[in-house]
Amino acid sequence: MSDAYDPGNIFAKILRGEIPRHEIFEDDVALALMDVMPQSKGHCLVIPKAPSRNLLDAEDETLSLLMPRVARLARAAHKAFAADGVVVSQFNEAPAGQTIFHLHFHVIPRYEGVALVPHSGGMADAGMLAEQAALIRAALD
Amino acid sequence: MSDAYDPGNIFAKILRGEIPRHEIFEDDVALALMDVMPQSKGHCLVIPKAPSRNLLDAEDETLSLLMPRVARLARAAHKAFAADGVVVSQFNEAPAGQTIFHLHFHVIPRYEGVALVPHSGGMADAGMLAEQAALIRAALD
Repeated sequence: MSDAYDPGNIFAKILRGEIPRHEIFEDDVALALMDVMPQSKGHCLVIPKAPSRNLLDAEDETLSLLMPRVARLARAAHKAFAADGVVVSQFNEAPAGQTIFHLHFHVIPRYEGVALVPHSGGMADAGMLAEQAALIRAALD
Repeated sequence: MSDAYDPGNIFAKILRGEIPRHEIFEDDVALALMDVMPQSKGHCLVIPKAPSRNLLDAEDETLSLLMPRVARLARAAHKAFAADGVVVSQFNEAPAGQTIFHLHFHVIPRYEGVALVPHSGGMADAGMLAEQAALIRAALD
């Protein structure tokens, strides 16, 4: 089906504190942080602490604990930027668009008439990401 | 934030048995069925029985119960069609692509080199959908 989990992936390094992140919240279950290659204003991510490559090999318990946190982040991002909608997406394996092989959910605010930026590899300005993380954090319920 | 839940939506009617569906599985929590406007071979959906408009107003418990079922369906669709990957997506409000206002998760198998079909409104052949539902059902763990 797919390869084994590789603990050298970028999100595993972020979870271990080896790479800095623009954190929104963190608890025993998950970390919510900004996507450094945002497709829209406020594009953020939720990653579980439990290791899995993606949804296909994740434990049920991990998913049950994770999804209320994804919803909490979606509500906060929606509110923080007065977005017109929110896309939640999750990619399994490279042909489906997965580029980092640790389970993660994208939370992508959408704005009427504004197209998504292609996930092209450009890094966003760190100051802007820190500012957006603070806005989402302030909007958490 | 968003309008109230409207029990006249298509998925509510399907859950009440007022409209036929190409069912994959059903239990106390959710119904898994084929998308009648598939974006790829095997495109299916999971909808909770609990009413909510989308992720923004869903109860945490609904999400915790739902996601293991989304993962089960993703694994089965991946296996049934020997897909190269699977996209899971969920849209909140019309500007984000939501067209039916009852929470649902898309499970979209992806195949190397095959683009997604736009969600253009064409209904797929019922015989083909029934056949695909049977293949996914047979691949459920």
